[in-house]
Amino acid sequence: MKRNAVRELLKVATRPDVISFAGGLPAAELFPVDVVHEAATAVLRRIGGRSLQYSETEGIPGLREWLARRYSHSQFQVRPENVLITSGSQQAIDLIGRVLLDEGNAVVVENPTYLAALTAWRPFGAKFIPAESDGEGIRTDSLNDALAEKPKIAYLVPNFQNPRGTTLSLERRHELVSLTRDNDAVVVEDDPYRELRYEGQSLASLSELAGLLPAGPESHVVSLGTFSKTLAPGLRVGWVIAAAELIEKLAVTKQAADLHTSTFCQHLILELVTRGVLEEVVPLFRREYRRRRDAMLGALEQYFPRDAIWTRPEGGMFLLATLPKHLDGTALLPAALKENVAFVPGEEFHLNGRGRNTLRLNFSNASPERIEIGIERLARVISMKC
Amino acid sequence: MKRNAVRELLKVATRPDVISFAGGLPAAELFPVDVVHEAATAVLRRIGGRSLQYSETEGIPGLREWLARRYSHSQFQVRPENVLITSGSQQAIDLIGRVLLDEGNAVVVENPTYLAALTAWRPFGAKFIPAESDGEGIRTDSLNDALAEKPKIAYLVPNFQNPRGTTLSLERRHELVSLTRDNDAVVVEDDPYRELRYEGQSLASLSELAGLLPAGPESHVVSLGTFSKTLAPGLRVGWVIAAAELIEKLAVTKQAADLHTSTFCQHLILELVTRGVLEEVVPLFRREYRRRRDAMLGALEQYFPRDAIWTRPEGGMFLLATLPKHLDGTALLPAALKENVAFVPGEEFHLNGRGRNTLRLNFSNASPERIEIGIERLARVISMKC
Repeated sequence: MKRNAVRELLKVATRPDVISFAGGLPAAELFPVDVVHEAATAVLRRIGGRSLQYSETEGIPGLREWLARRYSHSQFQVRPENVLITSGSQQAIDLIGRVLLDEGNAVVVENPTYLAALTAWRPFGAKFIPAESDGEGIRTDSLNDALAEKPKIAYLVPNFQNPRGTTLSLERRHELVSLTRDNDAVVVEDDPYRELRYEGQSLASLSELAGLLPAGPESHVVSLGTFSKTLAPGLRVGWVIAAAELIEKLAVTKQAADLHTSTFCQHLILELVTRGVLEEVVPLFRREYRRRRDAMLGALEQYFPRDAIWTRPEGGMFLLATLPKHLDGTALLPAALKENVAFVPGEEFHLNGRGRNTLRLNFSNASPERIEIGIERLARVISMKC
Repeated sequence: MKRNAVRELLKVATRPDVISFAGGLPAAELFPVDVVHEAATAVLRRIGGRSLQYSETEGIPGLREWLARRYSHSQFQVRPENVLITSGSQQAIDLIGRVLLDEGNAVVVENPTYLAALTAWRPFGAKFIPAESDGEGIRTDSLNDALAEKPKIAYLVPNFQNPRGTTLSLERRHELVSLTRDNDAVVVEDDPYRELRYEGQSLASLSELAGLLPAGPESHVVSLGTFSKTLAPGLRVGWVIAAAELIEKLAVTKQAADLHTSTFCQHLILELVTRGVLEEVVPLFRREYRRRRDAMLGALEQYFPRDAIWTRPEGGMFLLATLPKHLDGTALLPAALKENVAFVPGEEFHLNGRGRNTLRLNFSNASPERIEIGIERLARVISMKC
């Protein structure tokens, strides 16, 4: 429970003179501030005090209904009872751990995987079983081996994974849904970057694929979404889509955790999405983040050592760079911070001591110009250690 | 973890034709909707996208500083490091349980006590030790007996307790602070109603009394506060004041629980309090709730059976009525709901099977007129069972 050394070091990364590839921050300059103001005005005028009052633990009915409609289609019917509003996706991860995990339960994760899922579930006594992943996400053979350990949960980020930026292929999605079902594992599909695709074809979600099974949306897949990457993270509104029975259990736990998510933020979000703001704003995020990703890929090509490699994500906010074997990301960090550039050592996201020579690089927060300068600085630090 | 029968029954209490004394809802018609709108406008104009961005787990610095200043005085210095912003007081209760409680730890509570603290801490394996309370709060002799069981925590609501409405006397506050210190128990002072005093003198808080000790604010008292009762609960902003070392641990747990409390709601609150809105709004709440309390006390006097008694709170939102021994609050509830009046059976708040003949009555939400009608209806239901 001690904040680790890396987190302490990275506190300086918020200084304006530091070019930070460390966080996972969206570009705040793209947030629809004026429309948020119009929405706040409309909510307070129309709903008044009720928008500032206590509300239902499960979420305000209008937002649950909107999400149910948005994620339903002819072959996949989501009902409002399948939706729980959470205080960001992080709360969904926490609640799922509290409801599903007992001391010693096995949890299959990609290796590397999203750090905060490990941090959230470790206190519940989860035993993490890493499954290997490659450019197409978690490998089916490795998943199969992991399932032999009778995991309670298989956790993964199928689209533009954090930290690698890779996306699970359609074939593997089908296999994963059916293998986990046959082995009685709950799939937790953490999907915050779904809307942030810059090229290539969108793939069916795991919950949609499971929904094609006879169980429908009452399946073994729990899907997590958020408005943090498509509208604004500071409102802290995310959601879970899952079988109604599980939603009910998660709601009981949420009631003890924080009663409910901010009524006002939920009404703001509902007003924004009803006005079609996602259709205006998400394309802006996509266009700008694509430019930034391309700026980072270009700068890596230009400045990074010949023997370094990196992933080329089709979307999302991160890529993972792999340096020559003798280099250590954690050891590089202090020198990088001295040069006013920050990243997260990839080791943080790995299990079994892997990934020591990797760096997670965020490309959504800095401008293309600053990205180029930052990568050049970082390359200089690396070349001094080579 | 199953929602109980009472909660299911009370779902109908939100129907407009039901006069509900069941919830703990503030009067939404008193919320400062126009000033919230002005504050939202000011925040979005001045801070822009940053008010919608991710922010620090501990809370935005300005709000921590404001709270530290507000609760400091010449003999009690609170620093920003002593403050953690939480998603309502409920989250503070949850986080404290997660950080401090291990399976089987003893926790002293008043009997009756706040239900949601029991619900939040039961999953962590807390063993609750009820201490008797009377019109002046938790009894020192009973506390002393309970401390013999080496509790980790003593939890109490010192002002206008939920459900009884009683207030811990100054003498007992001094005794409690010193007895718990001598017995190495952490005091959790849950103080949501502090500002809602309608008569009598405000008493020093337990954290202030402990702060007079050599330890200062780094004492064994953890104090929980909230803007839910003084501004609006739908923003979900509360706080913890405690020793800096404990705040740090709570923040690590909060990071895994929901990353941070809504940045936008925190900025809204900071803008509101900086504009002096509390000084305008809290007196309105006080005046109106006092009228409602008086309406309820008057109606109880007029309509309730001669052999019923009830508490007479100097503030807060609740009182507890005790019916003749042969009556059962839980058994009365369905009949009351049929008559369109709701309450929470007092048994819910009691340990050791006590309080079966008690009813918790909220007086903050309904108008004085509806309170009179509701109590008359309730008295009719009771008289049918007498």
